[in-house]
Amino acid sequence: MAFDAKIRVIKTRNCPIIAGFASVGSKKESEGPLGKFLDMTFEDSFAGEDSWERAEGVLQREAVKIALRKTNLESENIDIIFSGDLLDQSFSTIFGLKNFGIPFLGQFGACSTMAQNLILCAVMVDSGFAENSIAVTSSHFCSAERQYRFPLEYGGQRTPCAQWTVTGSGAAVVSNKQMMDKFNKNKRSYPCIEKFLIGKILDFGVNDSSNMGAAMAPAAAQTIVDFLRGTDTVPSDYDLILTGDLGEVGAKLVRKLIEKEGFKIRDNYNDCGLMIYHKEKQDVHAGGSGCGCSASVLCSVVLQRMLKRELNNILFIATGALMSPTSFKQGETIPGIAHLVQIKNLNL
Amino acid sequence: MAFDAKIRVIKTRNCPIIAGFASVGSKKESEGPLGKFLDMTFEDSFAGEDSWERAEGVLQREAVKIALRKTNLESENIDIIFSGDLLDQSFSTIFGLKNFGIPFLGQFGACSTMAQNLILCAVMVDSGFAENSIAVTSSHFCSAERQYRFPLEYGGQRTPCAQWTVTGSGAAVVSNKQMMDKFNKNKRSYPCIEKFLIGKILDFGVNDSSNMGAAMAPAAAQTIVDFLRGTDTVPSDYDLILTGDLGEVGAKLVRKLIEKEGFKIRDNYNDCGLMIYHKEKQDVHAGGSGCGCSASVLCSVVLQRMLKRELNNILFIATGALMSPTSFKQGETIPGIAHLVQIKNLNL
Repeated sequence: MAFDAKIRVIKTRNCPIIAGFASVGSKKESEGPLGKFLDMTFEDSFAGEDSWERAEGVLQREAVKIALRKTNLESENIDIIFSGDLLDQSFSTIFGLKNFGIPFLGQFGACSTMAQNLILCAVMVDSGFAENSIAVTSSHFCSAERQYRFPLEYGGQRTPCAQWTVTGSGAAVVSNKQMMDKFNKNKRSYPCIEKFLIGKILDFGVNDSSNMGAAMAPAAAQTIVDFLRGTDTVPSDYDLILTGDLGEVGAKLVRKLIEKEGFKIRDNYNDCGLMIYHKEKQDVHAGGSGCGCSASVLCSVVLQRMLKRELNNILFIATGALMSPTSFKQGETIPGIAHLVQIKNLNL
Repeated sequence: MAFDAKIRVIKTRNCPIIAGFASVGSKKESEGPLGKFLDMTFEDSFAGEDSWERAEGVLQREAVKIALRKTNLESENIDIIFSGDLLDQSFSTIFGLKNFGIPFLGQFGACSTMAQNLILCAVMVDSGFAENSIAVTSSHFCSAERQYRFPLEYGGQRTPCAQWTVTGSGAAVVSNKQMMDKFNKNKRSYPCIEKFLIGKILDFGVNDSSNMGAAMAPAAAQTIVDFLRGTDTVPSDYDLILTGDLGEVGAKLVRKLIEKEGFKIRDNYNDCGLMIYHKEKQDVHAGGSGCGCSASVLCSVVLQRMLKRELNNILFIATGALMSPTSFKQGETIPGIAHLVQIKNLNL
């Protein structure tokens, strides 16, 4: 791999805080090892709507509502919301968020969207252009499967390296600390966005749409290695290095690629796609995937453990496979991208 | 219409400059009234590729290349590129830009994308997180038509209010003025991004996918009126108020809606969709549309006239119809969004 001479790790000046967060899932996620950490789960894949796309919008809407409630903020207090999903033209995002009346900039980073949104929230807040912002994203197994692969009714056989799209959403309120301190009488510490690295589109010629982990692993490795070199740190400096949804195949690859560059990765590495389901019991093959995978894992167990001080300094690297059904049918490769966010506890 | 109590017009601190720009079109655009202002036009709708989606990527790639050449910058000098297009999962953007190796954040704002990208470039540069950035987007009649409406081979009849998707791209390099002055020996003045307003998703219940102008007009009017109220200015304070691609139907509506709010709109209002084609001669019905419409008009005649000081203070309002073929088939409405960028000549 070719690593960059010019690495653009950006350090925020005032470390925008994650003032509140929430995660939403469906029945399958509630039955997984992280089920108890989710704020809300739906028994029915339609979530009371009449299409899976609308149901996915409900996941985002509920995640935003709960995150707002936890921060004691109203939607009028939010200066900007960044969101996007896996569906064509971000169907679920548009219909899930349209009634909040919050200034909106739609994002597309495939499954890297949560990191992308957190970065843009941090930029808006750190620059003083926003006091409060929201990063949110979602995915839904049923809406994704029929758009990207086969109609569910077809009952297609899944390959061993295939991943299971998470039906879920995660939302984080990113705010200016000074403002929050004024607002909240009980001053407390928060996880904050210390540094970030925006990834590049990398094409390693992978063209198997059932093996997204392999398509995304090189981009994840490049972003992680660039960050470590750019900050002159090593993996053991962090409590957790967490990739988005590489699954079993991609997580193995990313370890190898990083080790090849001279860095030792130990127990402090994990992947959201490996955390969210019971591998054998839940029949998910290589693990979870989708924008909702890394978003719901980050905005549940991971940030909850940061609040409890069990984790204090983490790297969150969400990864995206930049494939469309059209590009795939035209025989194109699947480029990957990965964005990194360093989240630290303030006032250690 | 309900206009906001809390209007979030943002003023940049250092007025990031548009250091260079370029526009690319196809044969039809070259034959329109703005043909002579385009930097490059392709005779063949495939632009030497074997699919229209790849061809659309070529439009973006060439627009970026020319804009870089005009600024004497290399892709290594660009800290971030914001782009997106109308296609599912931004197919053309990914494949058009992947070889530049520039940190990338994918955007989805339907036809509002150029304003969205300019805003994010301005934020990155003004906050000091980037020295140079690029805003680019594209659309292609053939790729859009077959994705959103009918295969071209079907030869469907177009309604009178239908618009013609522009085959084109526009790219702008947004930079830190101090840096550019150091870099360029011949100091000169540039158009700069003075203020912006990020729009909200507005749903007025329009559900005719052949009448995008009507779907977008309320969002355009809301953003323009909010900006005027938020800055305490009137339309005549600006040399040009330019909407993205409302076309004939939407442009009439937006005038009415704004006048209803007590503002007089005169000759200084225009719409990119009305400028790019000869209405009668080119059989485009209600005018041009697509991300490439506002991008190519802004990055050709409009910014060229700013450099010549024929225009010094303009409002650029790109408008998006947030529809997907899936949401449309499920009977959903078409929400709209509009983002505004104020561009001024520095050193008047």
